[in-house]
Amino acid sequence: MARRAYDLAYERECRAIRAKVEQMLEADDDIRQIWRIHDYLSKERRETDQKYDYRYSVLIFVFARLINEGWITEADLSGLGPDKTQEIKALLRFGREDEVNS
Amino acid sequence: MARRAYDLAYERECRAIRAKVEQMLEADDDIRQIWRIHDYLSKERRETDQKYDYRYSVLIFVFARLINEGWITEADLSGLGPDKTQEIKALLRFGREDEVNS
Repeated sequence: MARRAYDLAYERECRAIRAKVEQMLEADDDIRQIWRIHDYLSKERRETDQKYDYRYSVLIFVFARLINEGWITEADLSGLGPDKTQEIKALLRFGREDEVNS
Repeated sequence: MARRAYDLAYERECRAIRAKVEQMLEADDDIRQIWRIHDYLSKERRETDQKYDYRYSVLIFVFARLINEGWITEADLSGLGPDKTQEIKALLRFGREDEVNS
């Protein structure tokens, strides 16, 4: 169940990156636009490679981040077990309080 | 005149790269296609950065290569002066003989 939510988030994020590339191609006919697209994809590849880490020890942080960024919802994690779900909810609350206080 | 031919080749090559990216997007809806496009753009960026070198000392080699690859024709270099044009033609002949003998 965790794997399903993880794969779903990755798929959604890849589709959003693809849509952005298509939009960049449409928006500008300048010959250097392909290098701007290359810069954009380099940045996204670094970020997604770093973000999508399926090691058990970091997984609750990964899921909290994916929820926070809107790639999945808490409902997508329904099969994860109550302990893990509570930990993720606590992380999200902590993150929100942190935003309010900063 | 040399600059015009050089810029023309660069523009044509960038447009061909863009067309290839558009074709790759159309050809495959797989989520990992964006990373294949990123690999392709990384390769092309390395190659074009290395190829498009406007230093006077290397320019006849650059032009011979651009003609050989079909990005410009000998006619595009008409304003370059007879000496340089002859040198480029000699390079192209040499390249063709080399291909025949290899």
